Amino acid sequence: MNIVQEESRRDRKKLQRRLLLIEIARQLIATKGLRSLKVRDVAEAVECSIGSVYNEFGDFDGLILTVNRETVLALTARLTAVPSDDPLRQLHGLADAYLGFATEHANLLRSLFEHRMEDDRPFPEDILAMVMDAFAVMHAPLVRLLPDHDPGDVALLSRMMFSAVHGIISLGLEERMVAVPPERLRERLAHFIDTHLAGLGIPRR
Amino acid sequence: MNIVQEESRRDRKKLQRRLLLIEIARQLIATKGLRSLKVRDVAEAVECSIGSVYNEFGDFDGLILTVNRETVLALTARLTAVPSDDPLRQLHGLADAYLGFATEHANLLRSLFEHRMEDDRPFPEDILAMVMDAFAVMHAPLVRLLPDHDPGDVALLSRMMFSAVHGIISLGLEERMVAVPPERLRERLAHFIDTHLAGLGIPRR
Repeated sequence: MNIVQEESRRDRKKLQRRLLLIEIARQLIATKGLRSLKVRDVAEAVECSIGSVYNEFGDFDGLILTVNRETVLALTARLTAVPSDDPLRQLHGLADAYLGFATEHANLLRSLFEHRMEDDRPFPEDILAMVMDAFAVMHAPLVRLLPDHDPGDVALLSRMMFSAVHGIISLGLEERMVAVPPERLRERLAHFIDTHLAGLGIPRR
Repeated sequence: MNIVQEESRRDRKKLQRRLLLIEIARQLIATKGLRSLKVRDVAEAVECSIGSVYNEFGDFDGLILTVNRETVLALTARLTAVPSDDPLRQLHGLADAYLGFATEHANLLRSLFEHRMEDDRPFPEDILAMVMDAFAVMHAPLVRLLPDHDPGDVALLSRMMFSAVHGIISLGLEERMVAVPPERLRERLAHFIDTHLAGLGIPRR
């Protein structure tokens, strides 16, 4: 084996370990929750040293952020896949898609919103921008439904509605603090959106 | 000093230490967040052993639950103090009160909603009931505003609105994921409630 082959083999192994570390961390967060995630458990599962995990991701936050970035990208992909031909149907579809994602990946979504950086360091800009992109998907259908509204108002309105839907779903899925029974969440969310749109002067579908 | 005096002195000292432990834990959660709370830091601040903390509260969750119980009681007291003479004004007052509490005690409120029991043990029933009591304060004014609605529907509706307001406030106060700028939260919340009530057929104030 020559030097180039040797280097590419090493790069490949390094990449494989990186992907494995991310996958193990994701599984641990998904099953046990972010709060239970220990760097030691990740290292043991991948059979490497704790130092290697830090080397690969800079620090423990780096590993969590990597998992959270993939979560927000998966959520955004799910939201942008909702058909946009009819803006009213699209808004309902977005709420359904968010509910579906939150139901399937409750702990991963919690990790996205509950993760704080150690020592109060600021979040990297890119993940904030990703979350804002996920927020923004509600904007386009609202612009179409409210063509005469001030664009700044519609932007705020879409964030308000996204936050409201997020609150309803996240408290609804907390079994311990059941705001709305999970089996009725889908129907109540649809009713919530219709009521809110009616209040904005948009007739119910 | 006789035996009775000696025992009462010991009880008093025990109670004082308990209150101090709770106060230290509360301050640490309030300033650094629940995720940074370490039983070692609490014990060191009170100059006792870690074992004494466990003895006093059963386990670490026991200490966190004690702080969280006081948080939800303080929140409920703030909400029930809102004047109830006019149901519409009361709903706006409740949203304002929740926003005020969340602004002043951001980390304590987060701790209430983000705390998970170790090893997936269930939450004690009493704290769940306390949270439900906090939820319930929105119910009475909605019943007055919607006298002809099905009571079960109004109960669900009030929980939906509480969850929505909670979502708007909690994401709005996350500086890293600003859904709505904090300085506009109060005005947007009022608009949100008016819009939603208008959608339910209740005229704006």
